[in-house]
Amino acid sequence: MKNIFVVGVGLIGGSFALDLKKIYPSSTIFGIDKNEAHLNEAILLRVIDEKAKLSDLDKADLVVVAIPVDAALKVLPSILNHVSDKTIVFDTGSTKEDICLKVKDHPKRRNYLAVHPIAGTEYSGPRAAIYGLYKSKTNIICEVEETAFKLQEKALKLFSELGMRIRYMNPKAHDKHIAYVSHLSHISSFMLSKTVINKEKNERDIFDLAGSGFESTVRLAKSSPAMWTPIFKQNKTNVIETLDEYIHNLQYFKKLMEDDDFKSVYKEMETTNYIKDILNGIQ
Amino acid sequence: MKNIFVVGVGLIGGSFALDLKKIYPSSTIFGIDKNEAHLNEAILLRVIDEKAKLSDLDKADLVVVAIPVDAALKVLPSILNHVSDKTIVFDTGSTKEDICLKVKDHPKRRNYLAVHPIAGTEYSGPRAAIYGLYKSKTNIICEVEETAFKLQEKALKLFSELGMRIRYMNPKAHDKHIAYVSHLSHISSFMLSKTVINKEKNERDIFDLAGSGFESTVRLAKSSPAMWTPIFKQNKTNVIETLDEYIHNLQYFKKLMEDDDFKSVYKEMETTNYIKDILNGIQ
Repeated sequence: MKNIFVVGVGLIGGSFALDLKKIYPSSTIFGIDKNEAHLNEAILLRVIDEKAKLSDLDKADLVVVAIPVDAALKVLPSILNHVSDKTIVFDTGSTKEDICLKVKDHPKRRNYLAVHPIAGTEYSGPRAAIYGLYKSKTNIICEVEETAFKLQEKALKLFSELGMRIRYMNPKAHDKHIAYVSHLSHISSFMLSKTVINKEKNERDIFDLAGSGFESTVRLAKSSPAMWTPIFKQNKTNVIETLDEYIHNLQYFKKLMEDDDFKSVYKEMETTNYIKDILNGIQ
Repeated sequence: MKNIFVVGVGLIGGSFALDLKKIYPSSTIFGIDKNEAHLNEAILLRVIDEKAKLSDLDKADLVVVAIPVDAALKVLPSILNHVSDKTIVFDTGSTKEDICLKVKDHPKRRNYLAVHPIAGTEYSGPRAAIYGLYKSKTNIICEVEETAFKLQEKALKLFSELGMRIRYMNPKAHDKHIAYVSHLSHISSFMLSKTVINKEKNERDIFDLAGSGFESTVRLAKSSPAMWTPIFKQNKTNVIETLDEYIHNLQYFKKLMEDDDFKSVYKEMETTNYIKDILNGIQ
């Protein structure tokens, strides 16, 4: 790995840049970003070594694409146009069906690996980049069989050095499952914040009463709208399905309360407590 | 403070017991609990010094009542019957209107201080008790003027030694505001977990994909149903109001997605990002 290119030098791309430099200390990390200020900041913070352009990609050994999923749909085909036969290109987006479909017939399809690292924080931009973000995290790879064997190997070696755990899925199943365990959590958190903020307009003291429980449920509402809007757009059908089920469950809980059926309210929570074991399984 | 009684030796009472022993090392911490196993565990873990009964309360200098809010309604009047004129009794429940009403005309009303420490974890029982749980946390005191001056002073000194920040409110306003910043978060978390668990019944792999974002939004779904059911029951009207608003906001978000109005989806999230500043204000 001599020349590593990171397209999008924010939280995800920047964190890859930091760890990749550690793994391949003699490599040069090039940053590409439409936001010039982010590029300059990434250089200042030593997240990347140099700025670059798409036309420089012919010398790339590895390209990490870490931009919003709508931008990725537009940019990935031209990235593939620019790279050599030996370059491995992977994206990091939270939706996989549209992007796999987009490059399905691209002549350089076998240079591309569809990747979704389940990692992140609620922060964004180069300043949010941290070392070790990917350690012990799950990395979902879609349509692995569409990528050239030697380039698969190269990428898997890299993910293993980052300490990631690999899961293979088809893009359709990925988008459906991730709507439940990631996309829905973000909406529930945003709307919970909205509900409380709207209240606060008239009752300025309300947040003074908030504790760590409130804080953890609304943490994801700090996330970047520029990153999340295109995700919801691309995964619209699945996300609406999860929202329907979530709203239904909330309405049912409300109905139980209205009916004074607190035995069932207890049971609802008791059954759901099972999440403890599940979360222990995650860690 | 010679004789300190903790009624309910779980997370909240047990954590008070631990810190109170540090502040008053020569005191004896007595535990009262209807769960004999919890009492024995609390002694083993050195959370309390000795077991006791309600009839022992005549020698109490301080009584901390940390039991579910339905039990508190029943037990607080007999606690007050047993204590001396110099005893300060405070409860720690998450609802304040019903309990203040319950002891309104009790001859020992002035021995009681209505307290809600905004502190806790998603765990319960004596094993969940920890040192320093109350440090830098908000402590809401209701109807302070109904408590005897000297006993107010005693309690405030104690809360100050625990490092707590005091906020005075009337019970009605407390119950309304806390429904937003605490009770609703718990329901949103329980129902989010339920939605994902129901999905998992058929798709066993789903949780393997969950990351830290999911984990933080469902953390509160580990909470104790025995503690939370009576809270929702006592604060029914306010909680249903918050649920109505939350469901309405989720439905509106869903409608925007169905209408492909992703400009407004972006705006919804951007406006709500303001939660960042609010949460910074909390810390």
